[in-house]
Amino acid sequence: MRFLRFKKDGETVYGLLEGAQVYELTGSIFSDYKKTGEIFELEDVELDIPVVPRTFYAAGLNYQTHLEKMSVAVGLDASAPGAPDIGYRANNALTAHNEPVVIPADATDQVHYEGELVVVIGKQGKYLTPETAMDIVFGYTIGNDISERSWQKSDKTMWRSKNTDTFKPMGPWIETDVDLKTMETIVRLNGKEQICFQTNRMITGIVPYLVHMTNYLTLYPGDVIWMGTEGTSPNLLDGDVVEVELTGIGTLRNPVIRQTP
Amino acid sequence: MRFLRFKKDGETVYGLLEGAQVYELTGSIFSDYKKTGEIFELEDVELDIPVVPRTFYAAGLNYQTHLEKMSVAVGLDASAPGAPDIGYRANNALTAHNEPVVIPADATDQVHYEGELVVVIGKQGKYLTPETAMDIVFGYTIGNDISERSWQKSDKTMWRSKNTDTFKPMGPWIETDVDLKTMETIVRLNGKEQICFQTNRMITGIVPYLVHMTNYLTLYPGDVIWMGTEGTSPNLLDGDVVEVELTGIGTLRNPVIRQTP
Repeated sequence: MRFLRFKKDGETVYGLLEGAQVYELTGSIFSDYKKTGEIFELEDVELDIPVVPRTFYAAGLNYQTHLEKMSVAVGLDASAPGAPDIGYRANNALTAHNEPVVIPADATDQVHYEGELVVVIGKQGKYLTPETAMDIVFGYTIGNDISERSWQKSDKTMWRSKNTDTFKPMGPWIETDVDLKTMETIVRLNGKEQICFQTNRMITGIVPYLVHMTNYLTLYPGDVIWMGTEGTSPNLLDGDVVEVELTGIGTLRNPVIRQTP
Repeated sequence: MRFLRFKKDGETVYGLLEGAQVYELTGSIFSDYKKTGEIFELEDVELDIPVVPRTFYAAGLNYQTHLEKMSVAVGLDASAPGAPDIGYRANNALTAHNEPVVIPADATDQVHYEGELVVVIGKQGKYLTPETAMDIVFGYTIGNDISERSWQKSDKTMWRSKNTDTFKPMGPWIETDVDLKTMETIVRLNGKEQICFQTNRMITGIVPYLVHMTNYLTLYPGDVIWMGTEGTSPNLLDGDVVEVELTGIGTLRNPVIRQTP
């Protein structure tokens, strides 16, 4: 099933996508919802981000080639974390499918995409085990972890390099039924394929992450965990269009705008 | 004015504290609210955290002595950030006034308090100036940034050292009218004063923080910014009680429990 959020009369409401039609919902997609009876065509609705996370988690360097390249680019330790480390991103940076990524005028040229699988939590969970971890996963969506590499290197935190407004496109919807074993992540720049990788070939997979995290923290419905990316990106330019496709979910598409001083 | 949240019939509702009486509110404290007519005695209500932040920001090393001590303790660069850096904390870790801080069994002895001023945002703001920055501040509350120093040193991020469940007590309420010039932060352990410092003697003050942050990000109603702490803490033990008083706001009190293996 595909759940999305869209704008209606100045508010954001939930919808269920069936084919090309959006059935408006009331209630919570994580507990109890029903159709209102109103139906819209997907092409007619303006999508919003599919969930506002309670906490916005992000896995660090979680694919081998990306780890090796980034350790050189931003001066990080090239060894993978001994145990899964978890970072945070900020809700201010989230932006919807089709909305522009706006690069500030004082950013360098080194602004990059990172196509990522996003795990959406559906139930409260702590002290999960390998057997129970997947029980709290509601579904999956797509993220693009836009990063300004010079700030990532110079700042003590990623507040600006990764959390500038619009630097976290997420969407277009949450898909509850996927086959992680066969899923591929494909990133296209202006229609041209840049990279294609097996989404599930992570250094630390979803289950070990959930088990390790919930030794210390409680996950709640609506939390999201961005699982990291593979490879590297060319510098994004004003007018570029980035598409991140996750097979079985869909395609997250965002144009790029660079502000002028 | 003092706004708080308390538990009523299994839900959390807003209240306005006048003297020792709590007037239940409906609506949003950030836009439009009114009294429901129901009144409770403060001593009879169970407080919840006074706001669930949309984004939970935290200033880094923002007081001189703390900066110098921490740079030794956790191996950080002793120089203050050239510009205000902003970190993130996680909503899972928030816990209310009087609720216990629960230290996991596998934590070391090096678990410390950090008494902090918390800025609560009331209006949306971007590209703030020194003249407009304070217009978006709704009020202030108190935070205790519990930290496990060995994890802070060993992990790549602060996900566990500072964001373990219950490691972020916040409350007891939001005070809208304070005198930052005269405010003092006093931390007591088991009733005995450990440290007292001028709250506003920060390396980077609230206004420069808001101006710098909003060059890149939008602040929203309900966002909180924890402003950092001064000094150091002894190791917290099972059965300890930590109180953080900010004069003009109140006192945040939390007992400490250590889990056994």
